[in-house]
Amino acid sequence: MEYFSSNSLSDFSTAIFMKIGCSTEHAELAAQVLSSADLRGIDSHGIARLIGYVRLWEKDRINPQPNITITHQTPSTAVVDGDQGLGLVVAPEAMQIAMQKANEVGTGWVAIRNSNHFGIAGYHAMLPLQKDMIGIAMTNASPLVAPTFSKERLLGTNPIAVAIPAGSEPPFVADFATTTVANGKLEVLQRKNQSAPLGWIQTSEGAPSQNPKEVANGGALLPLGGDKDHGSHKGYCLGAWVDIFSAVLSGANYGPWVPPFVAFLEPSANPVGDGIGHFVGAMRTDAFRPVEEFKQHMDQWITAFREANTVDGQEKVLIPGDPEREQEALRKERGIPLLPPVSDSLRQLAEKFEVEPPTRM
Amino acid sequence: MEYFSSNSLSDFSTAIFMKIGCSTEHAELAAQVLSSADLRGIDSHGIARLIGYVRLWEKDRINPQPNITITHQTPSTAVVDGDQGLGLVVAPEAMQIAMQKANEVGTGWVAIRNSNHFGIAGYHAMLPLQKDMIGIAMTNASPLVAPTFSKERLLGTNPIAVAIPAGSEPPFVADFATTTVANGKLEVLQRKNQSAPLGWIQTSEGAPSQNPKEVANGGALLPLGGDKDHGSHKGYCLGAWVDIFSAVLSGANYGPWVPPFVAFLEPSANPVGDGIGHFVGAMRTDAFRPVEEFKQHMDQWITAFREANTVDGQEKVLIPGDPEREQEALRKERGIPLLPPVSDSLRQLAEKFEVEPPTRM
Repeated sequence: MEYFSSNSLSDFSTAIFMKIGCSTEHAELAAQVLSSADLRGIDSHGIARLIGYVRLWEKDRINPQPNITITHQTPSTAVVDGDQGLGLVVAPEAMQIAMQKANEVGTGWVAIRNSNHFGIAGYHAMLPLQKDMIGIAMTNASPLVAPTFSKERLLGTNPIAVAIPAGSEPPFVADFATTTVANGKLEVLQRKNQSAPLGWIQTSEGAPSQNPKEVANGGALLPLGGDKDHGSHKGYCLGAWVDIFSAVLSGANYGPWVPPFVAFLEPSANPVGDGIGHFVGAMRTDAFRPVEEFKQHMDQWITAFREANTVDGQEKVLIPGDPEREQEALRKERGIPLLPPVSDSLRQLAEKFEVEPPTRM
Repeated sequence: MEYFSSNSLSDFSTAIFMKIGCSTEHAELAAQVLSSADLRGIDSHGIARLIGYVRLWEKDRINPQPNITITHQTPSTAVVDGDQGLGLVVAPEAMQIAMQKANEVGTGWVAIRNSNHFGIAGYHAMLPLQKDMIGIAMTNASPLVAPTFSKERLLGTNPIAVAIPAGSEPPFVADFATTTVANGKLEVLQRKNQSAPLGWIQTSEGAPSQNPKEVANGGALLPLGGDKDHGSHKGYCLGAWVDIFSAVLSGANYGPWVPPFVAFLEPSANPVGDGIGHFVGAMRTDAFRPVEEFKQHMDQWITAFREANTVDGQEKVLIPGDPEREQEALRKERGIPLLPPVSDSLRQLAEKFEVEPPTRM
């Protein structure tokens, strides 16, 4: 494991995004989204993916200078065409539109098509917090998940993030894949050569598996719940909901047609829409009750949960966002730990684009 | 098991609701919501609960003639005070407000306080379908669920329902508790004297349990996921999201303060809000893209999932709403099966209020 300062990684990502043709503004924004994942401990969605974005660009699947446009709107809704840009850039711009609409009519909801992987959903959902708004962000993703009873992979890990402001307490930030486990967690297990618990994966024939590489062998991730007895149909409902809001509302590809993130797999020859889809929303808290009153009750909500008695062996009941905040404090001080394959990928990129590699702490 | 025609049960519920003082219109609406649960096979939320509502009324916890008012609003949002009315009546009225707002500005979102149990979330979420709108409904509920690592019960089963119109296919209707299993499923197991699978329940000390009566002994239901390894923190996030939208936005009671549905348990002496809370939303599909285009893609989405290859032993991949539609077709023909304790409770009510009991088929 090598440690890098967050700033150094962020500068490096910015430089690479500029090398592939992004404007300074877009490159810095995209780097910030990746950096936010690394700081928050979502290793799978940070700079580890930088080389993946570059490979997609090499395949002409990412437009570094997108003309992001609203193609349809009402006072509280919009559809945005991302012009094949980086989701890391398209999603924050779409959220700005949602926040503008929330300013005007209380809430704003934007469905986005023709985009690419947007990094961590939590980054986008947290943008409205600074305006005392609630943020919601979801995205569909490469089909790796088998719905309940299905042998086939029809859904992505389709995450949902919800960020809710509080008063003296830190905000409530839930950000989770609608599977028992995010694909990134499996990638981490693979890099560490560890096996997965039962209930995460099935083989290509639908049998239980503990092999974190099973998905590469045609197997599938399982929806949250794991099996029918434990509510996997509910996880399937959640993933489907995200897929439909992100893509059927926007005109993006959905279900098995969602283009894969990895550049070595070709997108469907018969797409049903444009690129991948996201859905973001912003709600003014004062569209419901006075901000201070809302925040005071959020503080009380948070305190009640944080102070609950725990089961044996556990220190405290966590508030959604707590683990990421702890990581962030730690990593700001100690730096971002990168596994050798990840730091190697950065050196590769540095060489390829003749950019200074990030410096170790 | 005794079988009753849906109409006969519905007429009976209407008569009982009128006896406790509801207007004809409200009594019929409340009966329709219960009947919809029985038809769709959600036995726990149908007429089995009628006696529960009556007991709450006897405790002065339900106002049969509520003055349902909007206390705050913006073009896309409202807060509704249910005046301690039946949730069965308050929620559909709130959804009408959401739909009116969606008509005007694309989407409408209503947070409701001072209400009571609203029956199945799916009924309310399905109301917008007839206007080619997407419907969302959620509610908080009596605290029976322990968040991940908690010994204490801080959340309800807090269901979410999402209904999305399609074209020639039936609509997508997801309606699920954010626990591995709804409390109603445990009530059914109790009535049948059966035990529960592991992963559904914990004891009052936080140990695994298979006793469906554990919750009555101070134990708790578990969030969707069951344990941390299988994503119970995600189920906790979902339940918390529902609680905050339903109650912190509206000014209802949240978390451990939510008043219990059962009349023999007293509500908190120090409430943090009014009654229980719901949150409903309506989104015009044509606020995003032309209705026919949207429906055509929903049909394609549904077909792709329905036609997927299944794991061994399973006939087909279900679309959310399929199982309930199958039950509805069956029960319209064969009648609603009621377990003896339920049909006995109806005879009790018939005697008490001097109303004709429902007739068996």
